[in-house]
Amino acid sequence: MNNYFDYAASTPVSQHILNAMKPWENEKFANASSAHQAGRASAQAIQRARELIADKIGALPSEIIFTSGASEANNLAIKGVAFKHLDGKGHIITSEIEHKCILNACAFLESIGFVVTYLAPDKNGRISPSSLAEEIRSDTILISIHHVNNELGTIQSIEEFGAIAFEHNIPFHTDAAQSFCKCDIDVDDMDIDMLSLSGHKIYGPKGIGALYVRDARDSELVPLIHGGGQEAGLRGGTSPTPLIVGLAAAVESYPTKSDPIEKQFLDVMTQFDCIRNGGVSVVPSTWSVTFHTDEEVTRFTSDYPWLISQGSACNALSNVASHVLSAIGMSEEVARRTYRISLPPYQLSES
Amino acid sequence: MNNYFDYAASTPVSQHILNAMKPWENEKFANASSAHQAGRASAQAIQRARELIADKIGALPSEIIFTSGASEANNLAIKGVAFKHLDGKGHIITSEIEHKCILNACAFLESIGFVVTYLAPDKNGRISPSSLAEEIRSDTILISIHHVNNELGTIQSIEEFGAIAFEHNIPFHTDAAQSFCKCDIDVDDMDIDMLSLSGHKIYGPKGIGALYVRDARDSELVPLIHGGGQEAGLRGGTSPTPLIVGLAAAVESYPTKSDPIEKQFLDVMTQFDCIRNGGVSVVPSTWSVTFHTDEEVTRFTSDYPWLISQGSACNALSNVASHVLSAIGMSEEVARRTYRISLPPYQLSES
Ligand SMILES: Cc1ncc(COP(=O)(O)O)c(C=O)c1O
Ligand SMILES: Cc1ncc(COP(=O)(O)O)c(C=O)c1O
Repeated sequence: MNNYFDYAASTPVSQHILNAMKPWENEKFANASSAHQAGRASAQAIQRARELIADKIGALPSEIIFTSGASEANNLAIKGVAFKHLDGKGHIITSEIEHKCILNACAFLESIGFVVTYLAPDKNGRISPSSLAEEIRSDTILISIHHVNNELGTIQSIEEFGAIAFEHNIPFHTDAAQSFCKCDIDVDDMDIDMLSLSGHKIYGPKGIGALYVRDARDSELVPLIHGGGQEAGLRGGTSPTPLIVGLAAAVESYPTKSDPIEKQFLDVMTQFDCIRNGGVSVVPSTWSVTFHTDEEVTRFTSDYPWLISQGSACNALSNVASHVLSAIGMSEEVARRTYRISLPPYQLSES
Repeated sequence: MNNYFDYAASTPVSQHILNAMKPWENEKFANASSAHQAGRASAQAIQRARELIADKIGALPSEIIFTSGASEANNLAIKGVAFKHLDGKGHIITSEIEHKCILNACAFLESIGFVVTYLAPDKNGRISPSSLAEEIRSDTILISIHHVNNELGTIQSIEEFGAIAFEHNIPFHTDAAQSFCKCDIDVDDMDIDMLSLSGHKIYGPKGIGALYVRDARDSELVPLIHGGGQEAGLRGGTSPTPLIVGLAAAVESYPTKSDPIEKQFLDVMTQFDCIRNGGVSVVPSTWSVTFHTDEEVTRFTSDYPWLISQGSACNALSNVASHVLSAIGMSEEVARRTYRISLPPYQLSES
């Protein structure tokens, strides 16, 4: 898809990764929980994948809980903590510009008695660490703030959130669906207790993701999917060996250089009267662009009939300004002239 | 894998099905929630799959909620109903010989105040409809009984359970992971309100399954995975188009004849002094076999070094008699001489 500029919504799986997955589909297809040698081969492949992914974020293999994606990982993190407190309830801090899966999980928890504080971003989509510190209460049970915003590309100061959470002894979760592999992450340095990631945002398969859980085996997280003891007892269901192997292959082969199309894109954008939203600290592959006039929009969309989004994929089918653009103070009228153009992502060079 | 006789634990994905999935991995990989044409193409592929799967069980396409597998579907059905009753709590009826994912979900609900009745099976693993009728209370909120037992192959009288549930106006859920495609199912004729199925038990991919939910859009089921409004709002997360297409392809190409290996297997078994458990109403592909002596076990396992299970895959890594064999009254000693041998499954001819 030559005119596809919606890589923040999803990415293709390369032949190389499909090749890595294939033997586990139809030759070595045994259930990883089976005790026989074929089952053990599957379990070993999963273990190798777990090690590789753990290594990428400075975690232990036993701390990686495979899920069906970042939505499930986010739900597991938030409800997994909340469900320990069903009796006494408690207070959760998140932000106004989280992914819908977090906001809707929190809305559900509010409906059953939890209290949630939604931190407001500044006009660039940055959440300030001091606003977090101010909202902490004695009954705060969880802080969940994303790493990179999916609509703006804004990178949050998660190490500062982590430090504040650590100081107050409150678990800190971050949704890293849009940052995993793009940005360097070390869960210890950044004081992250839980981290969600997704395969299909990093050229891996759809239907797989993971939740990093610090000391998973000793964690008291309540499973979302109870099952046969898989994933340290935190996530039941037959392990999808091909998807897990594919996720690890995607991490291993994640590009470290920008795609040549990025240069072409930058050239195109110079022809238009527009601004990039999200401030200075943004990932290079996600562009939130506001055109100055309706005419510029028309000229752009007719000259460049690219596959792009207004807002994120999840908001794509509705017509109002996304919750993210509203939260940074953008009017409906300006939001209508705003597009998310997202390029093939790659790893930012280590700083 | 020539010596693989563990098809009830998992099945291979044929090249034909992989071919059906592939275009959706790397050519037409757009997020099905994206509004652009590539996104719509994914959404349409998912819709076709939904129609095909719905048709297989006499349901409407809008009643099929894709999940990561039967474990998630079971958890969604049970907790989805229970979480509507968090205030008043309520009573759930299930059986002693459900899959671990159901039993562990129920144990969790008990720990937060729900009451669960576990119906006992007879020595063949059959749950009697009259025992169900007897346990119904005024606060019963859900009945969940599986269709085919994964260890014994026993087929339950789900249409009778359905009729009883319907008469009392209680939702009836059935775990059909081991019966979907093997047995004829019509959700209306059988008064089924929710039904779980899994891809990797029917030669489809691992990591995909579905929950049929009667009148899903109007159902008040509480989502397990809150998200961006996918799957009638009942299950968030980017839809895994390749897996969904693969699941539908598996349903479409499900074999209607037994594999030639079944004949060879039957010949082998005549050489041994053993009995088949599970009674007369069993699926032909799942055999629970008890050898009469330890010597017979040794002779069998050395002459036929097959990949088989003691109990199900989920119980495989523990050493005690499975909860199913215990529930049908089998002693530890006899359970140790009992194996599950499972052959390539196929659709029973329509009766
Ligand atoms: C920030 C963020 N969180 C969560 C998700 C959900 O991820 P998944 O599709 O793996 O469920 C996405 C993308 O859809 C995302 O961009
Ligand atoms: C009866 C039954 N229910 C549920 C499951 C779980 O299915 P899945 O592996 O798709 O989560 C299985 C198999 O593992 C099963 O046999």
